[in-house]
Amino acid sequence: MDRFRVGVLGATGLVGQRLISLLADHPWFVVETLAASPRSEGRTYAEAVTWELRDPPSPTIAAMPLRSATTRSFEHCELVFSVLPSSTAATIEPDLVADGVVLVSNASTLRMDPSTPLLMPEVNPEQLALVEARARAGEGFAVTNPNCCVTGLVLGLVAVWRKWGIEDVQVTTLQAISGAGRAAAAAMPIEDNILPSIAGEEAKLESEPAKILGGPLTVSAQCNRVPVVDGHLMTVAVRTTRECHPAEVVEGMRQFRVSDRVATLPSALEHPICVRDEDDRPQPRLDRDHAGGMGVVVGRVRSCPIMGLKWTILCHNTLRGAAGGALLNAELLVRQELIARRSS
Amino acid sequence: MDRFRVGVLGATGLVGQRLISLLADHPWFVVETLAASPRSEGRTYAEAVTWELRDPPSPTIAAMPLRSATTRSFEHCELVFSVLPSSTAATIEPDLVADGVVLVSNASTLRMDPSTPLLMPEVNPEQLALVEARARAGEGFAVTNPNCCVTGLVLGLVAVWRKWGIEDVQVTTLQAISGAGRAAAAAMPIEDNILPSIAGEEAKLESEPAKILGGPLTVSAQCNRVPVVDGHLMTVAVRTTRECHPAEVVEGMRQFRVSDRVATLPSALEHPICVRDEDDRPQPRLDRDHAGGMGVVVGRVRSCPIMGLKWTILCHNTLRGAAGGALLNAELLVRQELIARRSS
Amino acid sequence: MDRFRVGVLGATGLVGQRLISLLADHPWFVVETLAASPRSEGRTYAEAVTWELRDPPSPTIAAMPLRSATTRSFEHCELVFSVLPSSTAATIEPDLVADGVVLVSNASTLRMDPSTPLLMPEVNPEQLALVEARARAGEGFAVTNPNCCVTGLVLGLVAVWRKWGIEDVQVTTLQAISGAGRAAAAAMPIEDNILPSIAGEEAKLESEPAKILGGPLTVSAQCNRVPVVDGHLMTVAVRTTRECHPAEVVEGMRQFRVSDRVATLPSALEHPICVRDEDDRPQPRLDRDHAGGMGVVVGRVRSCPIMGLKWTILCHNTLRGAAGGALLNAELLVRQELIARRSS
Amino acid sequence: MDRFRVGVLGATGLVGQRLISLLADHPWFVVETLAASPRSEGRTYAEAVTWELRDPPSPTIAAMPLRSATTRSFEHCELVFSVLPSSTAATIEPDLVADGVVLVSNASTLRMDPSTPLLMPEVNPEQLALVEARARAGEGFAVTNPNCCVTGLVLGLVAVWRKWGIEDVQVTTLQAISGAGRAAAAAMPIEDNILPSIAGEEAKLESEPAKILGGPLTVSAQCNRVPVVDGHLMTVAVRTTRECHPAEVVEGMRQFRVSDRVATLPSALEHPICVRDEDDRPQPRLDRDHAGGMGVVVGRVRSCPIMGLKWTILCHNTLRGAAGGALLNAELLVRQELIARRSS
Repeated sequence: MDRFRVGVLGATGLVGQRLISLLADHPWFVVETLAASPRSEGRTYAEAVTWELRDPPSPTIAAMPLRSATTRSFEHCELVFSVLPSSTAATIEPDLVADGVVLVSNASTLRMDPSTPLLMPEVNPEQLALVEARARAGEGFAVTNPNCCVTGLVLGLVAVWRKWGIEDVQVTTLQAISGAGRAAAAAMPIEDNILPSIAGEEAKLESEPAKILGGPLTVSAQCNRVPVVDGHLMTVAVRTTRECHPAEVVEGMRQFRVSDRVATLPSALEHPICVRDEDDRPQPRLDRDHAGGMGVVVGRVRSCPIMGLKWTILCHNTLRGAAGGALLNAELLVRQELIARRSS
Repeated sequence: MDRFRVGVLGATGLVGQRLISLLADHPWFVVETLAASPRSEGRTYAEAVTWELRDPPSPTIAAMPLRSATTRSFEHCELVFSVLPSSTAATIEPDLVADGVVLVSNASTLRMDPSTPLLMPEVNPEQLALVEARARAGEGFAVTNPNCCVTGLVLGLVAVWRKWGIEDVQVTTLQAISGAGRAAAAAMPIEDNILPSIAGEEAKLESEPAKILGGPLTVSAQCNRVPVVDGHLMTVAVRTTRECHPAEVVEGMRQFRVSDRVATLPSALEHPICVRDEDDRPQPRLDRDHAGGMGVVVGRVRSCPIMGLKWTILCHNTLRGAAGGALLNAELLVRQELIARRSS
Repeated sequence: MDRFRVGVLGATGLVGQRLISLLADHPWFVVETLAASPRSEGRTYAEAVTWELRDPPSPTIAAMPLRSATTRSFEHCELVFSVLPSSTAATIEPDLVADGVVLVSNASTLRMDPSTPLLMPEVNPEQLALVEARARAGEGFAVTNPNCCVTGLVLGLVAVWRKWGIEDVQVTTLQAISGAGRAAAAAMPIEDNILPSIAGEEAKLESEPAKILGGPLTVSAQCNRVPVVDGHLMTVAVRTTRECHPAEVVEGMRQFRVSDRVATLPSALEHPICVRDEDDRPQPRLDRDHAGGMGVVVGRVRSCPIMGLKWTILCHNTLRGAAGGALLNAELLVRQELIARRSS
Repeated sequence: MDRFRVGVLGATGLVGQRLISLLADHPWFVVETLAASPRSEGRTYAEAVTWELRDPPSPTIAAMPLRSATTRSFEHCELVFSVLPSSTAATIEPDLVADGVVLVSNASTLRMDPSTPLLMPEVNPEQLALVEARARAGEGFAVTNPNCCVTGLVLGLVAVWRKWGIEDVQVTTLQAISGAGRAAAAAMPIEDNILPSIAGEEAKLESEPAKILGGPLTVSAQCNRVPVVDGHLMTVAVRTTRECHPAEVVEGMRQFRVSDRVATLPSALEHPICVRDEDDRPQPRLDRDHAGGMGVVVGRVRSCPIMGLKWTILCHNTLRGAAGGALLNAELLVRQELIARRSS
């Protein structure tokens, strides 16, 4: 099939770099347009970016001129990824959608908007119903993927949610620096240190899971930044609606399987949850790249004397938790035939 | 007054180094004897130790020969500190006590023994009643200080415990590497990593607080090792018996004052709990040395939608959490006149 | 004596914070005015700063309003410290001096200017002759302290320079992140990494030492940023003019003594060079705070089969290498009676 | 072809783990026997090892029993890899060779032995002449690969050595922790720190290159351990015999090509030297895994005012610098038909 032409908004940031790497040789998408902040406009991608990944971008990408963040820039794109910081996204995304753009966003701006899906293909593909009419009418619309920690947290919860129900979730995060963005990273050195709060993060962890899972759920979050390059680790304690045993939970997580429709998406895993038996796993350095960074790794599933269950979970924050999550959402849009072809 | 002659068992380890530093120029104690593992016996302290602190030991200490871990070695000591690893302590401490030694131990061996105080002078000086008869009779006995995390956790809880009662405590630890001991540190590199479990640690956090506070209490712990040099950070969620408001808790913690009898001990703080208002404190690098590493620093006291209250707390693990805790216990023994003079 | 009223330009940066800490309770100086970038103007110091040091600024400092970087702002100051980034300093410092300000600068702008001393009181107090006439005439002038690495390098060289002469110096730096400034720190994560170049740094290391020592000298520098919080470590290889033995060099460094006039300055050390005999010293974490961060620590002085001599040296980059170096220069100006009193 | 059956001595260490990973699915070798220290004997590999790499060993390897380090253990092996610590290797390797074993060793014990090749297939395959007679006679012999830093240093030097000659090399190393071995790692925490010496390392850097390159050469080394997980970075300054320009050196390094005989070895690179133009490369985190960790990455080739030339080079210490170097040597033995088949 002809690949869909896509744009990337926020292409020079670290999540943008991850997305560009994932889009290289993608069977369904080809990068048509890159856009970044006004100060990068007019420079080539190679000139504007401080590339932080091991494998460099292709020469084609490196030579692309950066465009401004306007609808006009994306006129040849059939889909636009936004991996902007939320502060910037808030001023740009609604206009793009109003102008008819199909937007797949990693930013928080539209996540809790009632007409916008907060989409995880493994968990709630049915939320696409929210945009189906607009898509069929050729109008603009957005789909969003959750916050990086929420993505990992919910992948760990979903099997339990479906089998036993969940009332309460207590979560403490130990988050890597790559999630911080450059400005935040500069605020206070993290070497030999922990930052015991992350602006806005706890509110996202406490609100997004209920929208994703589609039911009431109380989450209490305590977020920390730690000196780790990639990979958000979380300690989780869960009170279920119906009683269950840790061994059953491990079994339920291991048997969790995405739908056939999702399993065959190019970036999807049939079993996105890996459960380890060793007491000293998951570890960020050893486990964050499991399954190309698209799965979560769970360990230490055991009883909690207060909440009933507890475990530890790891999610690659800029892959499954950001760029990879957005890409998976775009793939589901293609599979559901919600993206219109444009004549070039 | 003449200073009491003390021995140090486990003097070459990092906690031993901290203790030796705290004992330099101590008004009540003077180091008489150092003992370490058999492979160090006969060497001087300077030869055997890999000194890890900024200020070196005094020439007198550096030149001391290391003795074996036997009662005989300590015959001129009026009190012996044990800062041994627990595995070694288990085979040595009971014999020393049986031989008549007054032992102030940082090891876990005797902590849960019903006839041994698990002592924090700020919290439960009355536990010394357990050893008073033996002390008056000139017999050997031991007092212990809690696990490093437990020390910090309980200093954060005590004001709330007394005013509103506590039912349940959910705690996640982010522990520094200096608590690990050298062998553990060597097992797996912690750079760019987190170890999601620490052998035996969660059991201590779940059992010791009730003995210290003297009443029933359910604790659920999730322990992690992070790449920080010193200072254990903990996220804590607390369900109180009687309702209370975060602002009242802050006020209660700030007003918490140790007894006059304790406040005047050389290493004690009148107010051992410091509460910060900033959202980004405590941080290990900035706050671990607060009050010479003998206080705890609390931050982010706020409501928890599940447990009622939550906060973050930091404790210097090898100072208030280990060497400093043992020293404070020894000072309380002196104040209570529970150490007998020996003729030299 | 009445203390001199001083201003601080660039007060919110990390070097500014160090300087403000050193000026607290200084016997000769009192902070009159703080200035920072335009976006901070009008806010109090506490509002504008992200304070990174353990001990907070005094309430007086915290409440000071930040002024703009103009001569007018400093009209009540008898001396102004500039700890600005060099890019900003270049546009501001020459104007201040032209307007009559006595400027003690840590920035590189004026360092190589022939009419401006590049001053290290322990090494070349005679360079003050360059400004004496202007000072006596009540005109503005500047003195500068060298780059942080140069400061440490030259303190290690000076004793050898005087006794045996030096032809060539090969130096590789392993520089801490606190020297980078916030913007640089944000450019690329340094966790589990090394940056093999630092913009402009090698040129400074290759040019400044000859001006400071007052004679020809070839330096070849290779600069690296490493994941260490504070303290620049350097490996140094030296070709001397006259032959010398490593043991003589150690002796010469240990005997190096500043002049009486300098030794009695409040921030000076009589012996600024500490030489360690242990093979595993200096280490940044253990040695950077030696003598309050105002001395250098040298180790591993030995023969080099190519250059003749080699050693390792450590200098606290934001103390002796920046804020402390500027302060020492200001103290020497007072001692030499080169600062004029202003009526308040 | 039938694969050669190989043994691994020191299989549980980190270099052993790297070697086992490289041997999985190797076209020429199959692991027959694993041996480790006496305390591991009798346990399976999975029980004895603390596995530190991302991808776990195969079930076959995991289930293998660990044998003792005797000739008897390896009786079915046609070649034995030794990745033992040198202290252990010294007591074992000579006996194995005397007993007829073909030994490919990463340890330093035999490196400078005149009858043993210090072999780098890209550089000096002709050193195999030293063992040819013994190999043809079916006797035991050893080949060794150089120290990890030496491997990287020499790969950077070889093109210059051949074209312009080299007199002197000044090198400062910034070495990762994975090279330290577990015991060394435990000696002193490296977090927020640098260790300014590494036992025995400088002597190796100063002696091994001349044996490898086969001519006189003066090296002066200054070795440091830094908080980086993998990848040794080195700053190098070089005095050549004949004058050359940095641009010619870059060209010479890029054109450096191994012989056809070596280029077709399974683990060889045709061009093992990658030269980067960017001023901020090589960086350990981004560049250590270049070409599967089997190449070196050079950057910042420029003039040195003292030595003539200088550059920065990075080598993956446990891959090309250890396990991969040993494997490449074994592959060359096969190619040269120096390994005898044994009947099973």
